Amino acid sequence: MEGVDYLADERKKAGFDVDEMKIVWAGSRHDFELTDRISKLVANDPGFSKEGRTMLPRKELFKNTLRKAAYAWKRIIELRLSQEEATMLRRYIDEPAFTDLHWGMFIPALKGQGTDKQQEKWLPLAYKMQIIGCYAQTELGHGSNVQGLETTATFDPQTDEFVIHSPTLTSSKWWPGGLGKVSTHAVVYARLITDGKDYGVNGFIVQLRSLEDHKPLPGVTVGDIGMKFGNGAYNSMDNGVLSFDHVRIPRDQMLMRVSQVTKEGKYVQSDIPRQLLYGTMVYVRQSIVSDASLAMSRAVCIATRYSAVRRQFGSQNGGQETQVIDYKTQQNRLFPLLASAYAFRFVGEWLKWLYTDVTQRLAANDFSTLPEAHACTAGLKSLTTSATADGIEECRKLCGGHGYLCSSGLPELFAVYVPACTYEGDNVVLQLQVARFLMKTISQLGTGKKPVGTISYMGRIEHLMQCRSDVKQAEDWLKPSAVLEAFEARSARMSVACAKNLSKFENQEEGFAELAADLVEAAVAHCQLIVVSKYIEKLQQNIPGKGVKQQLEVLCGIYSLFLLHKHQGDFLGTGYITSKQGSLANDQLRALYSQLRPNAISLVDAFNYTDHYLDSILGRYDGNVYPKLYEAAWKDPLNKSDIADGFHEYIRPLLKQQLRTAKL
Amino acid sequence: MEGVDYLADERKKAGFDVDEMKIVWAGSRHDFELTDRISKLVANDPGFSKEGRTMLPRKELFKNTLRKAAYAWKRIIELRLSQEEATMLRRYIDEPAFTDLHWGMFIPALKGQGTDKQQEKWLPLAYKMQIIGCYAQTELGHGSNVQGLETTATFDPQTDEFVIHSPTLTSSKWWPGGLGKVSTHAVVYARLITDGKDYGVNGFIVQLRSLEDHKPLPGVTVGDIGMKFGNGAYNSMDNGVLSFDHVRIPRDQMLMRVSQVTKEGKYVQSDIPRQLLYGTMVYVRQSIVSDASLAMSRAVCIATRYSAVRRQFGSQNGGQETQVIDYKTQQNRLFPLLASAYAFRFVGEWLKWLYTDVTQRLAANDFSTLPEAHACTAGLKSLTTSATADGIEECRKLCGGHGYLCSSGLPELFAVYVPACTYEGDNVVLQLQVARFLMKTISQLGTGKKPVGTISYMGRIEHLMQCRSDVKQAEDWLKPSAVLEAFEARSARMSVACAKNLSKFENQEEGFAELAADLVEAAVAHCQLIVVSKYIEKLQQNIPGKGVKQQLEVLCGIYSLFLLHKHQGDFLGTGYITSKQGSLANDQLRALYSQLRPNAISLVDAFNYTDHYLDSILGRYDGNVYPKLYEAAWKDPLNKSDIADGFHEYIRPLLKQQLRTAKL
Ligand SMILES: Cc1cc2nc3c(=O)[nH]c(=O)nc-3n(C[C@H](O)[C@H](O)[C@H](O)COP(=O)(O)OP(=O)(O)OC[C@H]3O[C@@H](n4cnc5c(N)ncnc54)[C@H](O)[C@@H]3O)c2cc1C
Ligand SMILES: Cc1cc2nc3c(=O)[nH]c(=O)nc-3n(C[C@H](O)[C@H](O)[C@H](O)COP(=O)(O)OP(=O)(O)OC[C@H]3O[C@@H](n4cnc5c(N)ncnc54)[C@H](O)[C@@H]3O)c2cc1C
Ligand SMILES: [Ca+2]
Repeated sequence: MEGVDYLADERKKAGFDVDEMKIVWAGSRHDFELTDRISKLVANDPGFSKEGRTMLPRKELFKNTLRKAAYAWKRIIELRLSQEEATMLRRYIDEPAFTDLHWGMFIPALKGQGTDKQQEKWLPLAYKMQIIGCYAQTELGHGSNVQGLETTATFDPQTDEFVIHSPTLTSSKWWPGGLGKVSTHAVVYARLITDGKDYGVNGFIVQLRSLEDHKPLPGVTVGDIGMKFGNGAYNSMDNGVLSFDHVRIPRDQMLMRVSQVTKEGKYVQSDIPRQLLYGTMVYVRQSIVSDASLAMSRAVCIATRYSAVRRQFGSQNGGQETQVIDYKTQQNRLFPLLASAYAFRFVGEWLKWLYTDVTQRLAANDFSTLPEAHACTAGLKSLTTSATADGIEECRKLCGGHGYLCSSGLPELFAVYVPACTYEGDNVVLQLQVARFLMKTISQLGTGKKPVGTISYMGRIEHLMQCRSDVKQAEDWLKPSAVLEAFEARSARMSVACAKNLSKFENQEEGFAELAADLVEAAVAHCQLIVVSKYIEKLQQNIPGKGVKQQLEVLCGIYSLFLLHKHQGDFLGTGYITSKQGSLANDQLRALYSQLRPNAISLVDAFNYTDHYLDSILGRYDGNVYPKLYEAAWKDPLNKSDIADGFHEYIRPLLKQQLRTAKL
Repeated sequence: MEGVDYLADERKKAGFDVDEMKIVWAGSRHDFELTDRISKLVANDPGFSKEGRTMLPRKELFKNTLRKAAYAWKRIIELRLSQEEATMLRRYIDEPAFTDLHWGMFIPALKGQGTDKQQEKWLPLAYKMQIIGCYAQTELGHGSNVQGLETTATFDPQTDEFVIHSPTLTSSKWWPGGLGKVSTHAVVYARLITDGKDYGVNGFIVQLRSLEDHKPLPGVTVGDIGMKFGNGAYNSMDNGVLSFDHVRIPRDQMLMRVSQVTKEGKYVQSDIPRQLLYGTMVYVRQSIVSDASLAMSRAVCIATRYSAVRRQFGSQNGGQETQVIDYKTQQNRLFPLLASAYAFRFVGEWLKWLYTDVTQRLAANDFSTLPEAHACTAGLKSLTTSATADGIEECRKLCGGHGYLCSSGLPELFAVYVPACTYEGDNVVLQLQVARFLMKTISQLGTGKKPVGTISYMGRIEHLMQCRSDVKQAEDWLKPSAVLEAFEARSARMSVACAKNLSKFENQEEGFAELAADLVEAAVAHCQLIVVSKYIEKLQQNIPGKGVKQQLEVLCGIYSLFLLHKHQGDFLGTGYITSKQGSLANDQLRALYSQLRPNAISLVDAFNYTDHYLDSILGRYDGNVYPKLYEAAWKDPLNKSDIADGFHEYIRPLLKQQLRTAKL
């Protein structure tokens, strides 16, 4: 069996240089080498085995995660990994853990909201993991509405302390990852009260557990909130509940970068603009978009490989059956997801650039692009995470019955992924923010304020309201300009239609509330345009490697024409295309599927995922699916014995009609 | 806390008689009383508690399911429950178990495919559960393509036996529920080979385990296939793997209703038409559609109640925040699902009638309606299960972060439900069958063969190809005739367009393969029309109870106008409506949401679900969500101790920088 490759024929078909594509996917040769090296390091280390993950009871699962986290840290130190390498190592361990929050939220919060002095004190401790921190914002009663948080931090000038308190049940912190069983510290968001006045929500560094025996400190009630979706999935994380009974912290543990409380209890704003805080948000969201492309590509890799292995129907004269990947319905469900993985990858890359750009501007006190950057990251976070969650489940269905087994990897991938639609901003709430930005942009058209960045097409509103698609034959839809104008016109017209309808309301807020569903559709149209346009920009770059650019063009066409077909109502309804042009787009889409087909396996190989990372029998690199499925089944605890535990008590009396006297 | 009802105000708002609606939902007063009585019986019996279900390791979970099954059987006997009552009891226990397959597939297969003599022998044993059976069709290598099964049943005239054998790894039976650890018998589907000739797939009764010690019989290898999606979910079921090494069964264990093998090994067809077998399929699928309405309504009930409890944003002057159910985006996601629950309920009811009708016709040798009945049940199975799977996940997202907790009930509901999209026919494969039927119908138009039943609208094809919507104002969309014609015209035109495109291909099969994705869309349009039209028919009946009919009309409007909006591209593209008429439909839809809003809670109360059945803290009847969430968290095994298991080995060395020497 060793060395077998059931997908070898598929791999031979590729019309492009897979190694070059790997570099495009990774972002650079450096990134390719980094991810390749670290992912293999993890895959080859038995200390990071995923074996049995979906079968462990919660406590064992969690304990194993603690072990992995400690072991990872040990390896990081032993191998002297850089921060970049360490981050990759944690990614490829591929299991939610308290360290995600420590590195991903606690430290960034200290950096973003702490004064220099606070950073000097706390960061070294955090960097060495002498303290472990989490991000405690959400409460039982408030998530989306952060301004509604109920936890209080009341300043007591007598002792120069804040009193952190949970006045109600609903004010209990609820959800923070790493909080339940591990964190020694938290950045706690609480209403700042001083001098009898409520100054709204601010962050505070609060110690929760003893650094000696790990016991919760007096006044601190803390625990895990219980089982979440899926088997292993997110249950390796101790999302926690926390409440305070008048817990006192020194005044200097208020995060004071943008506002302070003096010894006398006076509230003062620093001269550092509040907007600086948005930089962090842009950063976090860009990483969520890039994670979306990771999750989507993993699911697609599994479904694509299995679709080439799986054969069903269509055998002629006793020959082999048809590979299910050759069915047009399968392609129509799968290939747009493959295209989305690439599209999200590129828009994620661009967001990294945007983050740098925003950071530089902020440093130079230029806040002009912030609203646009904010809307665009919010919208892309929402768009890509929703599409990815749906996409993973579609990939599972594409694998038929076998996709329902944990050993397919897809149930876990789904269960662990879906909260991305909720955390860091509920996806609908985010699109409503985008919609607000769109309406504001439109209301300012003609006032001389020029729309910038991703919204600059609104500057050509007059043209976009009138133009018509000039597509005459299917191939015309391959022209980037044709596609781009279509998405611009659709988005502009949907926004303008909303603005018109809004203007009929006396009260704008009431209008916004009433038309919210339409506004969300307009926001989605705008975000889809961003993804399409960034993909098209990417294609204007020089992309080396035989056939690589051509493949990316095919994928770009599939991504955009699939959306055009799916949302045909928008394109037709706004009058930009005719129904004939819509059908031509669909014809072209089918043709692109046929072009993609021979390259499908190689396009997912280009993700360069190890079998360890995929953790899917259906998605194995070698396609050796059936023997491995069969083998894996026998590992289930139920198969430890021929006769089921419970046979004597419950099955035998049933069969023997002896239930009357049985103890059940 | 006892007796509190946080939703009392909501309940007061209802503009209709909830008790009468309960009867409409149940189907009849008899059905209401039956479901009410049995669901409460189960809810009040601690033997059927669901406590801890998502936290149990596989083995304990499974053992507990065995206990519940035995206990249920004991209660069924003690209480002398009728078959109808016993079925209800099993439904409300609400946990997949081997008994589902025994009663739902094994016994029906015996009845449908066994001769009278075989039924006389086997049914009494099965009815008393002296044997336990399952339905072993799917193999590792073949699911959708039943004709491709590889297991063989070779007749040996020497001994008058069949030799059941698994010639390859992929011929192992794989997936049958109840097979892995419990069933003593199976109906095994295998290729019938006699006299050296392969007569295709037939069913055989095969004993798998000893009735004494439950050990697998010689030549039988059997086990569980391992963990599936979700925590508890479907893991209470022993979906199994099974292979045969030349296992011999007597000739009379071939199910011989439609074909036989004689002692001499001659294959003969009986005079009973093969079509009779389709009756069972119609029956099974109608029950899947009715289960879809159950699952959808449970999810909707949870999300609706919680959306009324949950408040976020919009507090004015320190008052209460807005109930999230008042946000139009929330309504736009939730109310169409509520409407779908009712719509699926009614179409399921109609399918019951169809089943009776088909059965009577078959008995009278009238096969004329069979193709239509077959297409319509296949399509409705596909449509309703796909919509329900998506709908449950949408309900989970509608609950924000808290929906991700198992205690919300929604993750389990999703994980346990999704295979309905795959079993009893993969949903895409089924829609392709519908599409074939549609193309055939169209090709026969004008040949004098009149389309009947749900496809009869095709008889008015000329009108449907030309007519235009005459809607002038939003309210016009309330007219059933306006909606019906829109759905008929859309469906007819999409089918005709496919037929036209097909005719351009020289080879029809190639054309069908190439256009498969469009064909599936046409099939979906046809199925949506069926649901809409059956709902409209339902409203033409006399429906008693104050305001009941009005509410059902509102829901019907929401169901159809939501679909119209979602698939606006179809309606516009086929030229039946203008984009103005599309917007009017959307305006009317919004107005209907407002009409529905005050009735929402009562409309889900009408499902009459016990808290036990819902098993959701967010969906509690009394709306007492927060204290109960808080309480439940502490039951997680991780909270048994303040200090995590693993602290000393993994957390302390990390904090103390002592990893170098730690054993990890
Ligand atoms: C796995 C996971 C990990 C998490 N980790 C952390 C963490 O580390 N730290 C932390 O502090 N928090 C964490 N959270 C909490 C998370 O940030 C919140 O769940 C999230 O912000 C959503 O808020 P919510 O749950 O209050 O949703 P809600 O706001 O209650 O949403 C419920 C529904 O109401 C709708 N809605 C709400 N407001 C509006 C509006 N204005 N208009 C229209 N519709 C509206 C939403 O769209 C949704 O459908 C985590 C959550 C999860 C699931
Ligand atoms: C929870 C569960 C319980 C089950 N219980 C039982 C049981 O009790 N007894 C039993 O015998 N079986 C059972 N099954 C098996 C079930 O019946 C099969 O999984 C189902 O029939 C689908 O077949 P498949 O898995 O082979 O999917 P496949 O046919 O392999 O589907 C894979 C993909 O190929 C596509 N595809 C396949 N053929 C075509 C085509 N011709 N055209 C276009 N696309 C195509 C599908 O759409 C799908 O996307 C169960 C399955 C599950 C998940
Ligand atoms: Ca478990």
